Amino acid sequence: LEKKLQAAVTGGGPAEGALTREAFRQAVGNTLERRLFYIPSFKIYGGVAGLYDYGPPGCAVKSNVLSFWRQHFVLEENMLEVDCPCVTPEDVLKASGHVDKFTDLMVKDEKTGDCHRADHLLKDFCNEKLQKDLTITAEKSQELKHVLAMLDDFSSEELGAKIKEYGITAPDTKNPLSDPYPFNLMFQTSIGPSGLIPGYMRPETAQGIFVNFKDLYYYNGNKLPFAAAQIGQAFRNEISPRQGLLRVREFTLAEIEHFVDPEDKSHPKYLEVENLEFLMFPREEQMSGQSAKIIRLGDAVSKGIVNNETLGYFIGRVYLFLTRLGIDKERLRFRQHLANEMAHYAADCWDAEIECSYGWIECVGIADRSAYDLRAHTEKSKVALVASEKFAEPKEVEKLVITPVKKELGLAFKKRQKNIVEALEAMNEKEAMEMKSSLESKGEVEFFVCTLDKYETIKKNMVSISKEKRKEHQRVFTPSVIEPSFGIGRIIYCLFEHCFYTRPSKAGDEQLNVFRFPPLVAPIKCTVFPLVQNQKYEVVATAISRSLTAAGISHKIDVTGTSIGKRYARTDELGVPFAITVDSTTSVTVRERDSKDQIRVNVEELAAVMRSVTEGQTTWADVWSRFPHHSAGSTNESED
Amino acid sequence: LEKKLQAAVTGGGPAEGALTREAFRQAVGNTLERRLFYIPSFKIYGGVAGLYDYGPPGCAVKSNVLSFWRQHFVLEENMLEVDCPCVTPEDVLKASGHVDKFTDLMVKDEKTGDCHRADHLLKDFCNEKLQKDLTITAEKSQELKHVLAMLDDFSSEELGAKIKEYGITAPDTKNPLSDPYPFNLMFQTSIGPSGLIPGYMRPETAQGIFVNFKDLYYYNGNKLPFAAAQIGQAFRNEISPRQGLLRVREFTLAEIEHFVDPEDKSHPKYLEVENLEFLMFPREEQMSGQSAKIIRLGDAVSKGIVNNETLGYFIGRVYLFLTRLGIDKERLRFRQHLANEMAHYAADCWDAEIECSYGWIECVGIADRSAYDLRAHTEKSKVALVASEKFAEPKEVEKLVITPVKKELGLAFKKRQKNIVEALEAMNEKEAMEMKSSLESKGEVEFFVCTLDKYETIKKNMVSISKEKRKEHQRVFTPSVIEPSFGIGRIIYCLFEHCFYTRPSKAGDEQLNVFRFPPLVAPIKCTVFPLVQNQKYEVVATAISRSLTAAGISHKIDVTGTSIGKRYARTDELGVPFAITVDSTTSVTVRERDSKDQIRVNVEELAAVMRSVTEGQTTWADVWSRFPHHSAGSTNESED
Repeated sequence: LEKKLQAAVTGGGPAEGALTREAFRQAVGNTLERRLFYIPSFKIYGGVAGLYDYGPPGCAVKSNVLSFWRQHFVLEENMLEVDCPCVTPEDVLKASGHVDKFTDLMVKDEKTGDCHRADHLLKDFCNEKLQKDLTITAEKSQELKHVLAMLDDFSSEELGAKIKEYGITAPDTKNPLSDPYPFNLMFQTSIGPSGLIPGYMRPETAQGIFVNFKDLYYYNGNKLPFAAAQIGQAFRNEISPRQGLLRVREFTLAEIEHFVDPEDKSHPKYLEVENLEFLMFPREEQMSGQSAKIIRLGDAVSKGIVNNETLGYFIGRVYLFLTRLGIDKERLRFRQHLANEMAHYAADCWDAEIECSYGWIECVGIADRSAYDLRAHTEKSKVALVASEKFAEPKEVEKLVITPVKKELGLAFKKRQKNIVEALEAMNEKEAMEMKSSLESKGEVEFFVCTLDKYETIKKNMVSISKEKRKEHQRVFTPSVIEPSFGIGRIIYCLFEHCFYTRPSKAGDEQLNVFRFPPLVAPIKCTVFPLVQNQKYEVVATAISRSLTAAGISHKIDVTGTSIGKRYARTDELGVPFAITVDSTTSVTVRERDSKDQIRVNVEELAAVMRSVTEGQTTWADVWSRFPHHSAGSTNESED
Repeated sequence: LEKKLQAAVTGGGPAEGALTREAFRQAVGNTLERRLFYIPSFKIYGGVAGLYDYGPPGCAVKSNVLSFWRQHFVLEENMLEVDCPCVTPEDVLKASGHVDKFTDLMVKDEKTGDCHRADHLLKDFCNEKLQKDLTITAEKSQELKHVLAMLDDFSSEELGAKIKEYGITAPDTKNPLSDPYPFNLMFQTSIGPSGLIPGYMRPETAQGIFVNFKDLYYYNGNKLPFAAAQIGQAFRNEISPRQGLLRVREFTLAEIEHFVDPEDKSHPKYLEVENLEFLMFPREEQMSGQSAKIIRLGDAVSKGIVNNETLGYFIGRVYLFLTRLGIDKERLRFRQHLANEMAHYAADCWDAEIECSYGWIECVGIADRSAYDLRAHTEKSKVALVASEKFAEPKEVEKLVITPVKKELGLAFKKRQKNIVEALEAMNEKEAMEMKSSLESKGEVEFFVCTLDKYETIKKNMVSISKEKRKEHQRVFTPSVIEPSFGIGRIIYCLFEHCFYTRPSKAGDEQLNVFRFPPLVAPIKCTVFPLVQNQKYEVVATAISRSLTAAGISHKIDVTGTSIGKRYARTDELGVPFAITVDSTTSVTVRERDSKDQIRVNVEELAAVMRSVTEGQTTWADVWSRFPHHSAGSTNESED
């Protein structure tokens, strides 16, 4: 368990490491904000914590990531994509558990009324002590680490007790704090003019899919397995958002709900991913203090580390998705949830975690949620969300039949009869058969009734229990759901960090920023600039621009008179992979961003070449080998 | 003005027309709902009025429409696309006027408390009287028509008076109604845990762009014109949503804010659209009782019917966008707002209206909003949202200088000094020069001070007014904004209606439904089916599926043993343009949906052919002329 600390807590590691990380984060952040990848929302009004806009290049990256997601998941797997509203009535979120349980524990500054997340304050206190207080004993240090590891498991009372014990006060003001109490993270609103229908802004997109299960199953020809998908906004009214773009109050989720027969979790395309090898961090390794290691996916599944083939298939597909976007595979790991992290109904759960300056960040959760969600909505809505398997020929099955004798029960228990009937009918096969044999041998049995919270004596004449053979034509069951859920904003932020680097300018007097986005996600695929301000070149540039537009390639013309070197630097900083310099009317120079290699391409061929290299049909290496190279002279960096 | 009725009111026209429309709407609606183009949201919980999900084919159509919108507008014009949150703090919507004015007038059923839109009840009453009451006099009929035409202009009191006068009661219950009062249509919420920061779900996406004007202008190199764009969810808490998918509580907007110098509203690409001809419905024609007519866009602009080139350019581009999607150009018109419909600040406004079974529906609004929005946010936020034009050389300009002499004013007016100083400084040039000449001739003048609500006597020694010549290096001004705003859901619904038709089955015993979606928007581009259930054909079908996926073409495999005719009908009803029947291992039959024409294509060529015909590089006519035709035999409809 101690290892959970190392795995989950950010800001650990040696102090210099943290400093470097901080400086790196600053550098990326400055570039992102200066070039409008993102903008604090409503900035001219002072902004709102936890809300950010994507500016033009950020918005383009996001739109590219989502297009690729659709291509990689929805199209590839023939998923049923749906689009449901954000405004959600209370019933739905009551059934899903969000109304009662989607909370964080909050404490209030007793004087100013400012709100803080209780666990954050305790975490900050422990981290600070561990890092800065050189006088603490080994024993104390051990205790604090234990608190950090246990943080997610603390009850409201335990958190409150620790805060009291350590004398933690409000940050900034140092005022005393209230006891922790749960704060629901959903934005609440009211639907319609009466003010009587409570609603919430959805905290996830998944529920929209679950409530449509019946229709989607029918749409799929009443066949399993199938997957539904949804991309959309989700909302969490965070108590005090921190970590910039990683913890925000509104964000885009892309979620898949793959419905399978719980008795058959194989996947037809599993073979396509089983040979992938990447960093995995199974429960066992975390508990025994080891670190993540490279495992062949097929081995993890066959050894039972990953619960089933379908879960394994999606882990593999997520790995391919993230690395193709440009996530560094050495800073990507799949971490299995520990038993205490997982919901009681979940069969297994793995997070795709990406390492960035804030530590290892959960960006995709891939969970086998069993039948939980469909059952919850079945119960609340009274609409059966089930699937069925028709047998080729009728099967003889043994069925447990429990028949409470209501008359006897009524005589014996009066008003409690109803509770006892329900409890008897709810017994599983093992419980029922045990009761049957006890009744037969002893004539009566002590039976615990949950809803009465006590034991009652059941006599032989009060219930009949038997097994009957029946012919059945089909098996009706609640499907299991395997849910890969993508935090698009987090993935994009990590991508920004993984793609960012600096390199000295030609003159060596400054560091230039570069984003090495793959063409797939680059916000703009190429820039076009006339070498010098000159009507002849500008006409060619305009014609090129038109041909690029027709080919669907996003680009930007830069006709400023700035030096070619400065224009390269500007475009590198936006992560534009190719710069097209118009230095003649028949052919142009194309420069690749990271290698700075240059080739010459005829104007007529240009759009086709650019399309194939930006859409990934060819690579720069291919292009480099096919076209004449261009080295010295006017289009070089030295021009600045 | 009477003509506004004809133009705007739905459900007019002869009674049979209305019946046919109703039946047509039913037929489309049934098909759309049965094939899951849309689903009433949260159906298993009884649904919520005004909220709909897009099911798989609807979601695919929507995603195609949005992709094409990005291609047609954002990419083509190099627009700056942004992505801002839905949750919006009160300040922003206070400045925009939504907090105070985004209301509908509501009446309550005095017994049940049910809420109704006051204008809807009055409208229903008038329409019903006009259509069903054969006894009403010509005079009365005239009066009711006048009420319908004036509906949007009625104040709360006027509406209330009419409702009383006509004795209108609550629908269904027939209970008396309350007086009308304004109900704000924004979904309200609260940001953060304190409950002290009021927020709303945005009613439009435009404000997110306006508040970012300064950064976007900088990003564009401090140059005008430029356009920013945003696609996203918007929310309106309608009082009682009607008209199905046309009036909903949450919807997707795509908005463009094109910022221009108010002194130069030309557009560089205007020539590309000026020769377009389509149905326009200028203000003049509406007022004089004529109908919409075909006008060449260039003529409308040059005659001043359309206010300026940029507005004209966007009208043309919107026309191209809608017709390329598949909107019937004979049921699309551009209607100019009448003077009383337009906001006081707007220079001109045109709605793209599409005719469907509900009448002519506003689907895109194209407005020249002048400098209103930027000024409103400048005033509220105190951040200057302005542009500047640097002069090539400094210009000499005459500037009005008003200098109140505070000492004299203080002596004369004591505490009122401040109000008077402000009022003096706020005079425009005309007022100031009049005061100057009065003071010079008479020595004093009576001056109305708004904030004191009375006249004060200003003497010559209390203020100096002069005109000074100054050299200026630039002109600073608030840009005008031209805003095309697209209701994506409405466009899609109209598209569904325009693309829907029925045709008899081969046997002639039933009517089959077809959506004639262009490949661009079709939810699925092709279906693949093995002619008979047979391992050999299924292997080919799977290989074809893989090659289509690699080419990025959405498709569906249908391996059910159903007859080929039934499978065609199923796929026609989803609007799939091409059906690929695998009837050999080397070549296949491709059938086009509307003509039912069939050609034979080799398996290896197939993906490339499908890509070019679905992406629009070639047309079916081209393909038809290049490939061998397939007529008789096994793949024909007759098979059912």
